[in-house]
Amino acid sequence: MDNSASAKVSGQNPALIRPTIREDAGGVVILDQTRLPLATSFVRLETLEDAANAIRVMQVRGAPLIGATAAYGVALGLAADTSDDRLQHVIETLAATRPTAVNLHWALTRMRHVLEKSVLATRRDIAWNEARAIADEDRSANASIGRHGLVALQAVCRDDQPINVMTHCNAGRLATVEHGTALAPVYAAHTAGLPVHVWVSETRPRNQGLLTAWELKEAGVPHTLIVDNAAGLLLMQGKVDLVIVGADRIAANGDTANKVGTYLKALAARAHGVPFYVAAPLSTIDFACPTGTDIPIEERAAEELSAGDVAVFNPAFDVTPAALINGVISERGMAAADSLSPWQP
Amino acid sequence: MDNSASAKVSGQNPALIRPTIREDAGGVVILDQTRLPLATSFVRLETLEDAANAIRVMQVRGAPLIGATAAYGVALGLAADTSDDRLQHVIETLAATRPTAVNLHWALTRMRHVLEKSVLATRRDIAWNEARAIADEDRSANASIGRHGLVALQAVCRDDQPINVMTHCNAGRLATVEHGTALAPVYAAHTAGLPVHVWVSETRPRNQGLLTAWELKEAGVPHTLIVDNAAGLLLMQGKVDLVIVGADRIAANGDTANKVGTYLKALAARAHGVPFYVAAPLSTIDFACPTGTDIPIEERAAEELSAGDVAVFNPAFDVTPAALINGVISERGMAAADSLSPWQP
Repeated sequence: MDNSASAKVSGQNPALIRPTIREDAGGVVILDQTRLPLATSFVRLETLEDAANAIRVMQVRGAPLIGATAAYGVALGLAADTSDDRLQHVIETLAATRPTAVNLHWALTRMRHVLEKSVLATRRDIAWNEARAIADEDRSANASIGRHGLVALQAVCRDDQPINVMTHCNAGRLATVEHGTALAPVYAAHTAGLPVHVWVSETRPRNQGLLTAWELKEAGVPHTLIVDNAAGLLLMQGKVDLVIVGADRIAANGDTANKVGTYLKALAARAHGVPFYVAAPLSTIDFACPTGTDIPIEERAAEELSAGDVAVFNPAFDVTPAALINGVISERGMAAADSLSPWQP
Repeated sequence: MDNSASAKVSGQNPALIRPTIREDAGGVVILDQTRLPLATSFVRLETLEDAANAIRVMQVRGAPLIGATAAYGVALGLAADTSDDRLQHVIETLAATRPTAVNLHWALTRMRHVLEKSVLATRRDIAWNEARAIADEDRSANASIGRHGLVALQAVCRDDQPINVMTHCNAGRLATVEHGTALAPVYAAHTAGLPVHVWVSETRPRNQGLLTAWELKEAGVPHTLIVDNAAGLLLMQGKVDLVIVGADRIAANGDTANKVGTYLKALAARAHGVPFYVAAPLSTIDFACPTGTDIPIEERAAEELSAGDVAVFNPAFDVTPAALINGVISERGMAAADSLSPWQP
């Protein structure tokens, strides 16, 4: 992989905010999230293997951004050969990188559909155009999620008290092409001048909470880091007004796979009558997947726990039943988790 | 502090298992738990300040072991001066080290009672004798907890299937003078030839789960490490037969303060009908404390999260309501959490 485009920018100057993914003269430049928050550096993707590796090792992560990166990965993979065999290989390679986030498969299916019906000579341009469309639509969908989710924050806003939002993992701008999903309503509230404070869960084992803290600082949104274990105490003490998380796959019945630990927060939110919302673009809803038990749960390497030679079980996701979810926020608005069928394409 | 007694022993040879605390020619030698599992080293405590510091920085931790160490700390503190003023200073210094574990205050109150009514010339010997009695009684109480708790494990044992126990933090032999509290029934089952497997939670921010893994390995008990976030998924998947945790303070109504994150496990256990037990000696029950809301929750330093300059909230404990606890196991047997009054001294 070519790291020559690596660069450092301050994380604190909004004028220097750089996108998570952008096209660059026949390649794609991504913000390397494995190096955050210590270093803000960029990696240039030039080949199919570059793109597949970036998804696998989590240089890009977050369901929507994985989808966009995979789409661009198809375009990169067709650089020298646009044949049907090559297209098949490219899509299979990218599909094998991570099993749970459905946006990956959604984006690859969409790319396959437009490319299969096009002639070989035009495929390369069509691939770039379609990947660009997927990225642009993610920006637009997340901006809408921000507007719709803002209503939920306004509903719990009391005079000058800060709205205390709890989130899990990173479902902010870093998890998307822009704006974020769970954090989009937070940014919308902040922009609208509402006082908002975010409880940021560390999110073991990969500590994506530090990514959330990093991007909230960049945006000037007040926040406090906690260990994942502290979520129950905070809810018991009345220090949380609502919980918003992203999603890696939402089943047709509303059961939601998201970063492991989400389910514990949903249980605690319910125990204390605090609303629990899932924010995700429609591309995260898998209408072909009936329930949460049908969602494959990725297991990742023991090394992520840095525990030496101890036996480890390291599932990356868990499933929150629809019954614990007060609403799903998409670009279409807010819906009851058990009533998503009107959004079916 | 004098580290000259530091030594290393293998953690894998049962013949070399060394006690968490022992008397040694006018001093006290403790196993330094801040260095586990990387190094098995010992620290010699010779002064009041040595003992107070060992508790404060968590070289010893676990409510019962904190109590025994504080008792020995009183004996050390009276070495040169057994006056009433000195006794008062010694007890106040030790009491200020950690606020939540009630065993600390229980042991200090007991020491004060026997010492106040003794003449100055005998106080030093009486202090050593009483500290030794507290340590001996902890051994004995925990052995009884093992026998009583074994019944709960036998109740979920199905033929040759391993009994899957989930615990949190470390409430094993390292948290006590000997045997452990939550792990005492596990050791009793293992010794009785029952197949048992322990799901060990990492327990952020201080990763005491690694201490649990270390001592289970030392004892030959099969175990698997998980991140705290994974507890909900395991319970949902039916991979847990019962949950046993220790306690830092049990209120008169059965509400239980234990390592932060315990409450989330209790909620998830209840959601899936899995029994949730608290194992602790009677010295952990604070009958003067009516409910969980009366228990002070220690907040510890932000540095424990190693998150740089991010704002941090770091409570060390949370409170599990009695209604989520299926039983409290003490040296007296198993009792309903809301019916502890027969155990009141």
